[in-house]
Amino acid sequence: MKAVIFDEALRYVPDQAEPEARPGWRRIRVTTAGICKTDLEIVKGYMGFRGILGHEFVGRIEAPDGRPGARVVGEINAACGVCDRCAQGLGRHCPKRSTLGIFNLDGCMAEVCVLPAANLVKVPDELPDDRAVLIEPLSAACEILEQHPLRGSERVIVLGDGKLGLLCAWVLSTAAAEVTLVGKHPEKLAQAGWRTLRTALADEPIAPGADLVVEATGSAAGLARAIELCRPRGAIALKSTVAAPHQLSLAPVVINEITLFGSRCGQFQDGLAWLARYPDAPLERLIAARYPIDQALEAFHQAAGTSLKVLLDIGG
Amino acid sequence: MKAVIFDEALRYVPDQAEPEARPGWRRIRVTTAGICKTDLEIVKGYMGFRGILGHEFVGRIEAPDGRPGARVVGEINAACGVCDRCAQGLGRHCPKRSTLGIFNLDGCMAEVCVLPAANLVKVPDELPDDRAVLIEPLSAACEILEQHPLRGSERVIVLGDGKLGLLCAWVLSTAAAEVTLVGKHPEKLAQAGWRTLRTALADEPIAPGADLVVEATGSAAGLARAIELCRPRGAIALKSTVAAPHQLSLAPVVINEITLFGSRCGQFQDGLAWLARYPDAPLERLIAARYPIDQALEAFHQAAGTSLKVLLDIGG
Repeated sequence: MKAVIFDEALRYVPDQAEPEARPGWRRIRVTTAGICKTDLEIVKGYMGFRGILGHEFVGRIEAPDGRPGARVVGEINAACGVCDRCAQGLGRHCPKRSTLGIFNLDGCMAEVCVLPAANLVKVPDELPDDRAVLIEPLSAACEILEQHPLRGSERVIVLGDGKLGLLCAWVLSTAAAEVTLVGKHPEKLAQAGWRTLRTALADEPIAPGADLVVEATGSAAGLARAIELCRPRGAIALKSTVAAPHQLSLAPVVINEITLFGSRCGQFQDGLAWLARYPDAPLERLIAARYPIDQALEAFHQAAGTSLKVLLDIGG
Repeated sequence: MKAVIFDEALRYVPDQAEPEARPGWRRIRVTTAGICKTDLEIVKGYMGFRGILGHEFVGRIEAPDGRPGARVVGEINAACGVCDRCAQGLGRHCPKRSTLGIFNLDGCMAEVCVLPAANLVKVPDELPDDRAVLIEPLSAACEILEQHPLRGSERVIVLGDGKLGLLCAWVLSTAAAEVTLVGKHPEKLAQAGWRTLRTALADEPIAPGADLVVEATGSAAGLARAIELCRPRGAIALKSTVAAPHQLSLAPVVINEITLFGSRCGQFQDGLAWLARYPDAPLERLIAARYPIDQALEAFHQAAGTSLKVLLDIGG
């Protein structure tokens, strides 16, 4: 099968062996895959991953007889299903988990990938592929509300105008009284406008005292700004996975009794439910370009130069 | 009146002017005051405070005619009483607050101090002064349960065998299934033993996966250890106010979706209620020595050399 592989280097291969479904797992014929910032990091060595890349996809389950079944998206953490974490519904934190295209499991930039049946979520017929393929990062935005429910009167600041920042801002703008997206790029902020969402450039003055600050800048420096903008006893959602060390005093976190919570992967049902409630959410604005899978190297090159999403068309 | 002052230097003065009670405030005749690590930091320049030191005390309200009234302890943050924070019951975070002996308000290492009437909490007759004077740090330990209620089945690790670490460990040992106090000093750990509390030396192997880790080491390095020991989706209470910058990657906080909450001052009612429930709590073990107020310099010298509490006897 066609596949995008990272071993010594990033490569497109036309003749990769197809994966077999283990018991309880399913084969999925991938229609479209997205290139995520994590993929770009893996190509630089993050996680030490080797194999087929990709963890954002929409595709069709393959029936045992090979016929295409339901259109699905898939949660990326393949959990053991029996440990304490799994019993708590936290398969995303199963210590034995493998992660699609990130850790110990070949990814979805291929004609076929495999995942546990329990990970697959049927996509409503009315949801186009180009929206469905964004369910993974959208669900990661929705996860903030799973971890930190809002009652609706809050003032929220989202730092970072990348894809995840925009998705967080859009989701939270439907759940809080006032949401301001803060970024460094006027053109990205212009793209973010939707409903009541406000935007501000990072060097403009921004009123502090937010109830919730989302740190999605992707840089270690974002946290210090988040701490400045958060009210006493407020909360900061830390979305940036930054390998570089933070260097800052956390004394203000203690003095102001701020709660800082790390936030990573969400539940796809939450993302799908949110999309069903807000069919006008402008997800397509996040898509910069699409390439057939055999032009994956060009696609990765473009993805590295844009903060928007580049898609790979894989199957029909 | 007799008082301990920090201006250019730490000084005992026998003839300081007595403070007047503003409307709604009360004069308190101080019986005993405690020397806290924060006092030692202030003497090194922390907070830029100048004035009468001290924020831990037990004393008697002075009636308008000058007669001694109820025996009280006092919450240290004098709030404005009318702002949004105060309306939420968070006077501890009032932006206009002054803080006894720490910020814009003369402290309690004097024969008389003043505080808002609302800050004063009557001490039960059966509670000796030497326990009552420890209500402030004890309440700071109880505050962890205000911010992060436990259901009783949790495994907890407390890092740091200073006074606050011991108090946190004692309080949490009455609320969780298993509490381990981790410290560097065998003699302090030996003093900590009470009820079901376990102790471990910092260089012993400690099983990770704790539901809650309390970081009370007083050093910036403690947080990295806390992150290692906390389970995915677990919580870390950050008690150390460290001015030095932390230097660590918070990526594990994101990947494991850990919640980190700063924790500072507690409510005295919580500390008093806890002491009433656990009259055998060995608070007296925390007291190393006592000095009359006119030997305050010697007392501070000893306090700087011990992790235990040094008291000042001020009034009868």
